[in-house]
Amino acid sequence: MTDTLLAIDWGSSALRGALLDPSGRVIDERAVARGMLTIQPGGFGEVFESHFGDWMDSRATRCLMAGMVGSRQGWAEAPYCPCPAGLDDIAAHLLPLTAAAGTTRRIAIVPGISCERDGVPDVMRGEEIKILGALDLLDADDATLVLPGTHSKWATVAGRRIRSFSTVMSGEFYALLRQHSILARTLPPDDGVLDGDAFDRGVGHAFAAGGLMQAAFSVRTLALFERLAPAAMPSYLSGLVIGEELRCRPLEGRREVVVIGAPVLAERFERALRQRGIGVRRFGEEAAWRGLWAVQRRVDQRKGHR
Amino acid sequence: MTDTLLAIDWGSSALRGALLDPSGRVIDERAVARGMLTIQPGGFGEVFESHFGDWMDSRATRCLMAGMVGSRQGWAEAPYCPCPAGLDDIAAHLLPLTAAAGTTRRIAIVPGISCERDGVPDVMRGEEIKILGALDLLDADDATLVLPGTHSKWATVAGRRIRSFSTVMSGEFYALLRQHSILARTLPPDDGVLDGDAFDRGVGHAFAAGGLMQAAFSVRTLALFERLAPAAMPSYLSGLVIGEELRCRPLEGRREVVVIGAPVLAERFERALRQRGIGVRRFGEEAAWRGLWAVQRRVDQRKGHR
Repeated sequence: MTDTLLAIDWGSSALRGALLDPSGRVIDERAVARGMLTIQPGGFGEVFESHFGDWMDSRATRCLMAGMVGSRQGWAEAPYCPCPAGLDDIAAHLLPLTAAAGTTRRIAIVPGISCERDGVPDVMRGEEIKILGALDLLDADDATLVLPGTHSKWATVAGRRIRSFSTVMSGEFYALLRQHSILARTLPPDDGVLDGDAFDRGVGHAFAAGGLMQAAFSVRTLALFERLAPAAMPSYLSGLVIGEELRCRPLEGRREVVVIGAPVLAERFERALRQRGIGVRRFGEEAAWRGLWAVQRRVDQRKGHR
Repeated sequence: MTDTLLAIDWGSSALRGALLDPSGRVIDERAVARGMLTIQPGGFGEVFESHFGDWMDSRATRCLMAGMVGSRQGWAEAPYCPCPAGLDDIAAHLLPLTAAAGTTRRIAIVPGISCERDGVPDVMRGEEIKILGALDLLDADDATLVLPGTHSKWATVAGRRIRSFSTVMSGEFYALLRQHSILARTLPPDDGVLDGDAFDRGVGHAFAAGGLMQAAFSVRTLALFERLAPAAMPSYLSGLVIGEELRCRPLEGRREVVVIGAPVLAERFERALRQRGIGVRRFGEEAAWRGLWAVQRRVDQRKGHR
């Protein structure tokens, strides 16, 4: 019944795909730097064909896509699915592409999800698949998860559904402070390798200070009083920002956080979380493949019940 | 005994002076855009003479200066006076200029102050005089004070001495988000006049959200869902940043905060504090004149006791 699936994670900066066998195992993978931001309106079909047309001709019978490809500026807009959202909710809100989208392939786009707090909406696209995929791999019902990045996503899952989530602009704040603030004058031109002690000190000070707007000034005063070597400052600032991110999350009583992302940043989050006495489980791109495979399985099961 | 005093507030961006009679009343005032950042090393004496030499020739017998003029890059470095610091402590740490500084005038520079928390030093230069001046005008022993700005200073005073203070980079964070972040794409080119409702909403959301790095993202989502007019967004963002500044201060139980600064920003702080149920007393440049006059009086009293 279930055939080979082409799973696609098409985000702002990258286009990644994997061929998955009926058990969810990865048969083959490809990644190209053709993120949504590089594609002209109307150009998605052609880019997809040039990079994955051969697989759709011979190896996969259908394709499921997640990420910014489903945004207003993407291939076709897949309206947000409101929280709480689990695999069944996602499977019930797929957007199948039609001839109007310029393709005759069996392709469907997974919706992003939305939530609201204090009258303010929040949204994600692509991360929800990784979150649900990681949960499926963990075989867990409840979890707190983070996907670190320019705009980190923090999610709370209960009963296998994403109940709420928050976007935290920590990666962008780091870049703003690093490149455009008064601190940029003190910092060396390159970040260099991570200085673990300086990073840990930054995490610790984030919890001792009264917020990042105050804590950040310590980069300047520690430099003024020559108490921190210039080469250690980028690591210290990174610790301040990630420490602030943890400080502002309701993590009291949490024994474990699931971290999903590329190793460089995920390692820093793991280090900061462990300093705060919180255990970590980590996942990479395999979480996206698992999530898309699990959604496709739900779709197939629904069809089977009819 | 006490004669006419030339009080000078020489900061990074401006040079201001006032002639004060023996009772501290302002006889005359001048301000020029010759802040420390515009002056070459060794050039302070000449700039002072060209703008205040006539007053020192005929109207004032001595001059007391506060601000960045006493920093390492200033006219002469006046070492920081450690907290707790009151008028007597400042008066005991004046730096009189000598011929080595290129002047024969009776000029002394007031020291900045320093404090330390969690192994991290903090410093101010010029604000301490305004804080102590405002206290003298209020005839108060204890207070919480803020000097809003690019780098706001928050101070706690007990027994007429500054016990501790914090630098909060809120003005700079606003500028970074306004000009260099992803939010800049959504915001209109000019800030326009303050939209009070949008500002209040920003302050409120800062307290509801989990930190500024999360709250700032609401500018983007409110725009995406068309729930906030573009013209209102700069005021909303200003409310988010000032709200975060208040949220991170230990203001519980505080009935009043003293706000010292220029009207445009001080009005916003007053508005935000009142929304949080905290009363406000406001002061402008008169706080600096009063502080310098009060220090001079201490110096004269010490001499009188000998």
